Amino acid sequence: MLTQRTQHMEYAIRDVVIPAMKLEKQGHTILKLNIGDPCKYDFDAPEYAKQAYINAIKQGKSFYGCSNGITEAKKAIIQREKTINDVTANEDQILINSGVSETINFLCGSLIEQGKEMLIPSPSYPQYLSFPNFFGGKAIEYKCDFNDHWNPDLEDIKEKINSNTAALAVINPNNPTGAIYSKETLEGLAEIAADKKIPLISDEIYDEITFTDYNCFTKIALDRGASIVQMNGMSKNFFAPGWRIGYAIYHNCPEILNSCSAQARTRLCSNTPAQYAMAASLNGSRDFLKENKQKLSRRMDVVGRKCKEYGLAHVKPKGAFYDFIKINTENDKQWVLDLLQEKHVLTVFGSGFGEQGKGFIRIVTLPQEEVLEEAFDRIGEFIQGK
Amino acid sequence: MLTQRTQHMEYAIRDVVIPAMKLEKQGHTILKLNIGDPCKYDFDAPEYAKQAYINAIKQGKSFYGCSNGITEAKKAIIQREKTINDVTANEDQILINSGVSETINFLCGSLIEQGKEMLIPSPSYPQYLSFPNFFGGKAIEYKCDFNDHWNPDLEDIKEKINSNTAALAVINPNNPTGAIYSKETLEGLAEIAADKKIPLISDEIYDEITFTDYNCFTKIALDRGASIVQMNGMSKNFFAPGWRIGYAIYHNCPEILNSCSAQARTRLCSNTPAQYAMAASLNGSRDFLKENKQKLSRRMDVVGRKCKEYGLAHVKPKGAFYDFIKINTENDKQWVLDLLQEKHVLTVFGSGFGEQGKGFIRIVTLPQEEVLEEAFDRIGEFIQGK
Repeated sequence: MLTQRTQHMEYAIRDVVIPAMKLEKQGHTILKLNIGDPCKYDFDAPEYAKQAYINAIKQGKSFYGCSNGITEAKKAIIQREKTINDVTANEDQILINSGVSETINFLCGSLIEQGKEMLIPSPSYPQYLSFPNFFGGKAIEYKCDFNDHWNPDLEDIKEKINSNTAALAVINPNNPTGAIYSKETLEGLAEIAADKKIPLISDEIYDEITFTDYNCFTKIALDRGASIVQMNGMSKNFFAPGWRIGYAIYHNCPEILNSCSAQARTRLCSNTPAQYAMAASLNGSRDFLKENKQKLSRRMDVVGRKCKEYGLAHVKPKGAFYDFIKINTENDKQWVLDLLQEKHVLTVFGSGFGEQGKGFIRIVTLPQEEVLEEAFDRIGEFIQGK
Repeated sequence: MLTQRTQHMEYAIRDVVIPAMKLEKQGHTILKLNIGDPCKYDFDAPEYAKQAYINAIKQGKSFYGCSNGITEAKKAIIQREKTINDVTANEDQILINSGVSETINFLCGSLIEQGKEMLIPSPSYPQYLSFPNFFGGKAIEYKCDFNDHWNPDLEDIKEKINSNTAALAVINPNNPTGAIYSKETLEGLAEIAADKKIPLISDEIYDEITFTDYNCFTKIALDRGASIVQMNGMSKNFFAPGWRIGYAIYHNCPEILNSCSAQARTRLCSNTPAQYAMAASLNGSRDFLKENKQKLSRRMDVVGRKCKEYGLAHVKPKGAFYDFIKINTENDKQWVLDLLQEKHVLTVFGSGFGEQGKGFIRIVTLPQEEVLEEAFDRIGEFIQGK
């Protein structure tokens, strides 16, 4: 009776939550290093963003917006992209959405069907694995290389491109590895896409949470004449994931835009007051970000020090708020479940992020320093006890 | 390169908006009777709902909620359904979503693929036409009978059920006709579904905007042992469509629920502060509703009087805020576009709502009385000038 679409939709990040909840119900305290939600730790959206959201509600801006997004937010997006990334766009190219995941959904709806393939990084954010399969196609994982600071392996990508390749997804800064790709790698990716005429999907949701030089992939791709869908939003840079508000800019791909706009119409619009909040925020002060990045940086340093202490191999993250850590096991899912049961530390198993994640765990660098210290000491004990 | 999915996604309500915007740019004032958004007229969400929303933002409830919805909102939904509809549910059956349209999307993703059919009312809300086609199946329209107060024609439904029928959708109170179905009709629908073991989809989004006796279809269906997905939310009863927050209760269909939950996980969650607003509102005072219904009732009466004055046939609506009016033409789309050009009155052509909508227009009863008077006088002139 049911379609096959949802039969294999796994979502590793949440799948480990159920046994953790059981332990909590038994009265145990779990040290949670699993979920990429800063608001579950001691981060929050900046006051001015919250105030703009509140004002929109107070002013009765509870109507349906235009399905592609309200003009005020589109103007803010254009200004933000010009200022921060030197990327030019016009209002007609923009589709405001309920977060990057909605854009991935739309893009797969427009581009993927049986026989079609989407090239996605491995390890990858789970949505990129789920949606191509949901729409009857295949997510083809390209290798990101632990030994090369998790940069994508361009040769592997070239080998995997064929006449069925519908799109090439790039996540930079990367979730789950925390990598920021080198300029050379991004140029290589852009050249491949332009050469093979494959539309790029650029997930830039962490592009202001960076701790080293960062190059906007969209800018590089546009300079080389590629087609690219640039995705961003409020969830990470503005520490407001639960607002479910973001945007996509469709560069050099009007047909894909039209097709995604048709899908957008059927869900009427994104949350209108949240759109006003985004409009008022994208070009606002970044003082909050400076503070939050300092906090994150200290926490990342704790993780780095602890990894060294316990002999855990990892690549020091350069962006976002994750660390992807090598563990010596074939069965990382069991390892994560055992760690949870024995030491009450919750992480995510690397294989949940794809083939190249096998033998790793993903932790978030969001918890307070003392929590991270404690969690890693328990991980240390756990390893030594094995 | 693109899939076929979005090639035929039309959305009549919005498709008439583009020529109207052109006229506005030329400096003309358009009398808008086209969009079912009370906030575009003189309605707004109740103050306490807005305050709850604001409080959630202030309190930093900007995190990802559980993908199926936050507990507080689920508890409120259970209480609301028990009190208002005498329908019993538990938390595990509930999936909070970004409006009914997201649930229709999920349901079609779970139930519809090539060869599958969804029985939908005709005339119908456009989403029910779009999503089955998007997922490669077919929307099969069953007749709602103008001559029987727009009640569904049960014989027509029985004839159209076959082994490919994946679901039967019922919208009561109805958009676009404003009908409230008779108890006998609802019982008949429930019996067909229970007998043929076809899951029901019950769109009850207007269930508090009623001006006559109303029977909850879910209650009737459950009494007869049918499987039913009950949909409701904040958009209409609480005059907050732009908040994009609603819910579905999956009664007697755990497999469909599981499949839809998998889809819900991939979009992480619905807007969290809006969920808190819903939690605080569903069982709140209905004073605002009483006032708004009185206002709506007066406006519906104006429409009724004007229809009589100009000899326009219609069935007096019993719920929601629409009137579906017969016009003497084969080409209702052209009629609507001509009316717009000549008289600057914007309505929606009935055929945009399906086969049985041909030769009708849909208007909303939301504008102020004097606007409705003026609009209908122009329609009268338009008819006489033809």
